[in-house]
Order: sequence, then C-alpha cells, then structure tokens
Amino acid sequence: MTFLEDLDRTAWAVEQRLGEILAARDTTPPGGAELAEAMRYGALGGGKRLRPFLLIQSAGLFGVPQASALDTACALECVHCYSLIHDDLPAMDDDDLRRGRPTLHVAFDEATAILAGDALLTLAFEIVSNPQTCEDAETRAELIHVLAKASGWRGMALGQALDLAAERRAFTPEETASMQALKTGALFRFACEAGAMLGRADASCRDALLAYAKAFGQAFQLADDLLDAQGDAEAMGKAVAKDASRCKATLVALLGIDGATAHLAGLVAEAENALKPFGEEAATLIDAARFVAERRA
Amino acid sequence: MTFLEDLDRTAWAVEQRLGEILAARDTTPPGGAELAEAMRYGALGGGKRLRPFLLIQSAGLFGVPQASALDTACALECVHCYSLIHDDLPAMDDDDLRRGRPTLHVAFDEATAILAGDALLTLAFEIVSNPQTCEDAETRAELIHVLAKASGWRGMALGQALDLAAERRAFTPEETASMQALKTGALFRFACEAGAMLGRADASCRDALLAYAKAFGQAFQLADDLLDAQGDAEAMGKAVAKDASRCKATLVALLGIDGATAHLAGLVAEAENALKPFGEEAATLIDAARFVAERRA
Repeated sequence: MTFLEDLDRTAWAVEQRLGEILAARDTTPPGGAELAEAMRYGALGGGKRLRPFLLIQSAGLFGVPQASALDTACALECVHCYSLIHDDLPAMDDDDLRRGRPTLHVAFDEATAILAGDALLTLAFEIVSNPQTCEDAETRAELIHVLAKASGWRGMALGQALDLAAERRAFTPEETASMQALKTGALFRFACEAGAMLGRADASCRDALLAYAKAFGQAFQLADDLLDAQGDAEAMGKAVAKDASRCKATLVALLGIDGATAHLAGLVAEAENALKPFGEEAATLIDAARFVAERRA
Repeated sequence: MTFLEDLDRTAWAVEQRLGEILAARDTTPPGGAELAEAMRYGALGGGKRLRPFLLIQSAGLFGVPQASALDTACALECVHCYSLIHDDLPAMDDDDLRRGRPTLHVAFDEATAILAGDALLTLAFEIVSNPQTCEDAETRAELIHVLAKASGWRGMALGQALDLAAERRAFTPEETASMQALKTGALFRFACEAGAMLGRADASCRDALLAYAKAFGQAFQLADDLLDAQGDAEAMGKAVAKDASRCKATLVALLGIDGATAHLAGLVAEAENALKPFGEEAATLIDAARFVAERRA
C-alpha cells in the first residue's frame, strides 16, 4: 500500500466512525435535530484527517488495539473541527469557505455554528472518557488531561487569541512561530503523544514522538505559509494570501521562498531523525512528514 | 451558621480557588494575557455559585475530602460560566448585562468572548482530569464522562439549541420544560451526582440525589420563570420578561402565577422527600431547595 492509500484508508475509517458516533438517534427532541446535523456538517465530509493519521500511526508503534486508537483519533478530530468552526466565525477570521464548501455559519447560522463547535469540543471528552475507548482509567484520565492542556488557554485557544492579536500589531517571525506552535502545533503534539500514552510507552519513546511531532508541526505550518504566499484559492479550497495582508510576518517573509523551502527540508530531516529509535516501523510517519512538506494544497 | 452564611462561605471558597487556578503566570506570551483576563472576567466576581454549593454539599454526605469537592465544583462552575458567556453573545441571546455588569463580549470583544468560553469549557476537563482533584482515576474518568454528557449535544448544548428554536416557533409548556431540563437541569443533576461519584456512593444514594436534583432544577427554573413574569431588571441584574416576548410558553403561562406558586411548593416538597434516606445530614440541601424557590433575584 502506498502512503496516499494508507492516508485515504485512515480518513475513510475516521469518517465512518465519526459518522457512527454522530448518528442521529430517535430520541432527539423536536427542534434538536439541527444541532446534530450541524455537528455532522462540521465534522464529516472532508479533510485529510492528518491528526487522526498521526495518532493511529503512533499508536501502531506500540501495538495499541485499532479500535482504541481510532476512537481517540476521532475525539482529536472533533477538537480540530470545533476549532475550525469557531475560527471561521465572523467575529474571528470571518471565512466563508472551508474545504471548498460554505463554512458552518454560512450553511446554518452563527448561533448554530457556535453551539456545534461547543458540542464537538465537549464530545471529544465524552469519547475519550468512555471505557469503550480504552479499558485503563489511568490512561483515559491522562489522555484527557493532556488533550485539555493542548487545546486550552495555554495551548490551541491561546494560539488563536495570539493570531487575533496579530491583526492589531505587527508580529515578528519569532512571535508568529510561537503562535503557530500553539495554534496548530499543540494538536499534532497531542496526536503523537496520545499514541505513546495509549501504548504505555516509556519516556524515551514518548520524547522521540514529541520531537517528531514538533518538527512535523513546524513543517506543516511552513508548507502552509509557503502555499499561502504562492498558492491559489482554488487548490486550497479556502482564502489565501491572508497572512501578508494582516502584517503577520512568517518565516517565509524572513527567509524568502527559497530560504523557507530549504528550512522546510531541514525540518523533514529533523522529523526523520527523531524517529531513528523506531527503525523501519516508523517509515509511514516519516512519509507523513515528507507528505506535508511537499503538499501543494 | 445560617444557610445564607453557608452559601456565602462556599461562594467565597469557589471564588478564591478559581482565582488561584486562573492566576496569571509569567510564561504568558505577549498578547496572550487578554485571554486569561477575559476568562477571569467571565468566571470570577459574581454569582451565587449554586452548582458548586450543591456539589460540595452532596459530596459532604459521603465524607469526600473538601479539596476534591472544591476543585470538582470549580470545574463545574467553569462549564456554567462558559455557557453564560456564549449564551450572551449577539448571535445567541444578545444580552449586554449579566450579574449587573457588562457581558464579556461588551467588556472585551466578540472573538475574545467566544475564545474565553471555549477555554473555560476546556479548563473544566483539565481540572477534573488532574490527579490532584481526585486520586482515583476511575472516578476522574467517570466524572468527566458524566460532565461531558450533561454539557454536550444531548445535554446543556442541546437545551440552548432548543431555546433558540423556541424563538422561531411556539413552544408548548411541555416542550419548554424539556428544554429547561436540558439547558439548566443537566448541570444541577451533575452537581449532585458528582458528589455521589466522588464519594463512591451506592446506586440508591446516587438515585436519591438525582431525584433531589431533578426537583431542585425544576424549582429553580419555575422560580426563575415567576421572577421573569413578575420581576424587575434591577433586582435580577439582567434583562427580564423576555420569555413572554419570545412566545415560549412556560408553566407560569399554563398555570398562572398562583398555580405556578403552588406547583413550586410541591417541587420543594419533592426535593425534600427525595433526601429522606439521608436524615438530618441533608438539612442544608433541603434549605437550598427552599432558598431557590423563595429567592427574589
């Protein structure tokens, strides 16, 4: 199986499982069906499911049962989808297009988008705390603690707050990088760390995966910034060239296109190097780092 | 100590502990202080802290360590405060006044209000999953599972979605009651059930507390509806008489003021009756039910 087939297969599995979790039930009171429908709109039908892929691949290094890894991955994807829904809101980034479709507040309305985001975030914790996801309560509680920290006021939510602050004053490339480490990096780190937690891996394995995740996240973001500087809206399925218009200096502005491309190659090497201890077992994770660095959309 | 002194003392303890949890740290990156400040604005400085009070009193029936009950109560209050912040948003109920102060999106801005709500919700799960809150991982994971269900797409968030739907079509008193059982009832039920979970109480004790919480929540809501029908904005510290203007039929509309007042007395008796198995130990919880039924603000 090629890397892309592997990625697609995981995306399909996540789509199926999220669909099951979010399935409409007969007990929905009249008028309540819309919230569930909006959650399905926001969580299903798109995306490469990169975070779930990293989680499932990391868990695979330690022989974690597939159902455990898949459900934890779905919870993580709920957090990611909630963040996209809220970030797209008029009061935030005010985006009308996401994955080539109208954003949730456009397809439904703003109130429903706020609530659907809230409910997907809450659902993530409902999923991870479910004994079906993982038998061991210590692991469930630890996963939740690390996920909450990664997503919250010292993690992803802070990253989004800093991103909004970047609209009001100029950010240096270093400030942009710390913002990105929180806004997009935190969930990539959780994805890889969760695999280690589910597998009750020792500290050195966990650290290796965290080092990989850090380089992966930076590569993902730099590739995104390169695409933003060069790309076109059609290929991305969303608005582009927004960073420059917002005076948010990225590494691309600092290093130029060629310098940034070289730095990107260095990050991929760093990701690869971090996984040395796992040998051939980690080949797919290495492919993933190459994939995000080379992607054109 | 009188009931009101007891209630005040708990509110003070919750305020102190939430203040500690939300204390600014030196590590906040520049520009990130505003999110933490908004979370403090939304979570500190007001409210009767009824949900924490119920949780702490319920836990007290089983000799739960005070620090455990207090931290779980603070987590619950974070969920409650997040829900108020998001419900007040322009796209939702569009309220400018809460507890006699400008609402968060008025004092800060809409984006910060959305993020502060998101971050408080996430923080709730960070607190409960912390081993400091409760040594036993099974209990932590169970608390999180029940809290997520109470707050999410089949609980409080669904209640808010139904409340918004009630602006678009007339709700019968029964529909209003099911909406209220989700929107406000779910967290009261969690408050009492959490005490039983922390205390590893048997099923009959847990059921008794849930029956109490159900009657308590209905009494709280009916008293609120009575205040809404009769009250003035000054005493309430927020806008009143909004239900009638929104064609949301409440029990007050169905039974009239006198009928509703009589029904309220019945609910207090029901709450009292549910706690019979606990004898004198439950006197403060019974006082709490009387208090919410008799409150004038």
